[in-house]
Amino acid sequence: MSRTVLAIHGGCGVLPRAEMTVSMAADFRQGLEQSLRAGWAILEKGGPALDAVEAAVLVMEDLPLFNAGHGAVFNAEFGHELDAAIMDGADLRAGAVAAARAIRNPIRAARAVMEHTDCALLAGEGADAFAKQHGLEVVEQDYFSTEWRRRALVRMKVMEKDGTQKAATEAQKHGTVGAVALDARGHLAAATSTGGYTNKRLGRVGDSPILGAGTYAEDGVCAVSATGKGEFFMRKLLAYDIAARIKYRGETLAAACDALVQGELRRPGWFSGAGLVAVDAKGAIAMPYNTEGMYRGAVGSDRALSVAIYGD
Amino acid sequence: MSRTVLAIHGGCGVLPRAEMTVSMAADFRQGLEQSLRAGWAILEKGGPALDAVEAAVLVMEDLPLFNAGHGAVFNAEFGHELDAAIMDGADLRAGAVAAARAIRNPIRAARAVMEHTDCALLAGEGADAFAKQHGLEVVEQDYFSTEWRRRALVRMKVMEKDGTQKAATEAQKHGTVGAVALDARGHLAAATSTGGYTNKRLGRVGDSPILGAGTYAEDGVCAVSATGKGEFFMRKLLAYDIAARIKYRGETLAAACDALVQGELRRPGWFSGAGLVAVDAKGAIAMPYNTEGMYRGAVGSDRALSVAIYGD
Repeated sequence: MSRTVLAIHGGCGVLPRAEMTVSMAADFRQGLEQSLRAGWAILEKGGPALDAVEAAVLVMEDLPLFNAGHGAVFNAEFGHELDAAIMDGADLRAGAVAAARAIRNPIRAARAVMEHTDCALLAGEGADAFAKQHGLEVVEQDYFSTEWRRRALVRMKVMEKDGTQKAATEAQKHGTVGAVALDARGHLAAATSTGGYTNKRLGRVGDSPILGAGTYAEDGVCAVSATGKGEFFMRKLLAYDIAARIKYRGETLAAACDALVQGELRRPGWFSGAGLVAVDAKGAIAMPYNTEGMYRGAVGSDRALSVAIYGD
Repeated sequence: MSRTVLAIHGGCGVLPRAEMTVSMAADFRQGLEQSLRAGWAILEKGGPALDAVEAAVLVMEDLPLFNAGHGAVFNAEFGHELDAAIMDGADLRAGAVAAARAIRNPIRAARAVMEHTDCALLAGEGADAFAKQHGLEVVEQDYFSTEWRRRALVRMKVMEKDGTQKAATEAQKHGTVGAVALDARGHLAAATSTGGYTNKRLGRVGDSPILGAGTYAEDGVCAVSATGKGEFFMRKLLAYDIAARIKYRGETLAAACDALVQGELRRPGWFSGAGLVAVDAKGAIAMPYNTEGMYRGAVGSDRALSVAIYGD
């Protein structure tokens, strides 16, 4: 039986230390712990990594704290469009939904796409229609809305008018949730879910539902779930590039992740808030980010459950 | 001044030799030549690879012969949803649209996404709305429809009822158009456009608009445009895997392409009709396919214009 491990993130768009109250920090830590416990309950019984990452993400989709499901950010049209993907490292099976508007838990829809269709990605109206057909819970847009996120959109609209939106903090701009796991049978899996970023253009799809960009898992190599400015990750194939560096160049997981998050994605013209959680075939974990912090946590057969927000 | 080259494909879903009349073959060859000439007119004057691949794809979108733009296949709802992407190897800038319904030339919309937004991919209603805002030509769904493709859908619906749809030929199932180029300044570019496959599920997005799956370009490495069963390419990161093999393992373009098209994509459980056109930084071309044929052609500073359909 191999080492088992679960690592999660709730996005690298953390509130700046100066704005984070003690009580809010406690809420975030509690949310991360709840997510880890949900996934770990499956892994510690010898269950599949695929189920564990889905369960961990599901918890964060339901919590209003995180930018996914309930609590998702508003797009430019005062609505919500949600993206999610899940990938099974055992056979590279995967499913994803993009720009979905009515699916309560996009990660469940992603899993259903994987299991009940020949497709890998369903977008827009088709994603919502599929979820309904398969009996997944559908909701009105209001379900996703929170006052906190509505205020963030209004602030961003004002900044847009002033031409100061580039100065928006990571927390105002984006956020994502994700999980990676290695199970007792040695299988890897990854899952990611997001509402995108505040004031995003209608129909904008980011890296989260794109295999090899924001989400990737391959047995014997690694599993990755990313958070940050997704367009850069799509152009760089962030998640798959980490896998390719390991497979083709023998880099360690830590070196491959750093080459992207602290290297490529900090170059002139490419500087972008970026973070990720990753686990390799031996259970090594990497949780790098180049922002002020990243909501994150991990638990495993040889490590106690721990969560963190900033670099302390 | 470097060698310049343009390679195009009109899909690996060719009509079987037994069904292809002499007159149809002549039409396909003429269409391919027209596409090559449109792209080459730009390259031979020292123009950018990016403009050349867009121009080449545009011609095939407008011709009813190919599964893109006018002549796109029907989805399961008797409608059309179109995908396209374009990528500039110089700076990895890229744009794409997915599940678009009203854009006459999806490749133009992909380019506009790249140039006029911070986004890399717009899907569904948002893609159509963006195209309208930017003054691109929008059309009714009827514009895309051809009698040939309507009959293909009806046949596929019958086969679906009979449970014999797995026996459908590649020509009945899918098709795509694409182009790759190397320009006089040494820049690479790739473009791909498709209607997907006949009877596809509403909202299904394939590999074409996904960077690193069906479309990829990186200066100094290669440019790739793929055609075939896109879900496999998305899970394998077909286009970027070719680039990664060249970058990280020093494989030649030909070896890297063959490793995927004649190797990985012919393994048990992965057998899928696949083809692609690719060009590397020195102007070497690869046009592999594992189906009966692939509509294809190439032209360059040291090669006369040529087109082909089957392996002769």
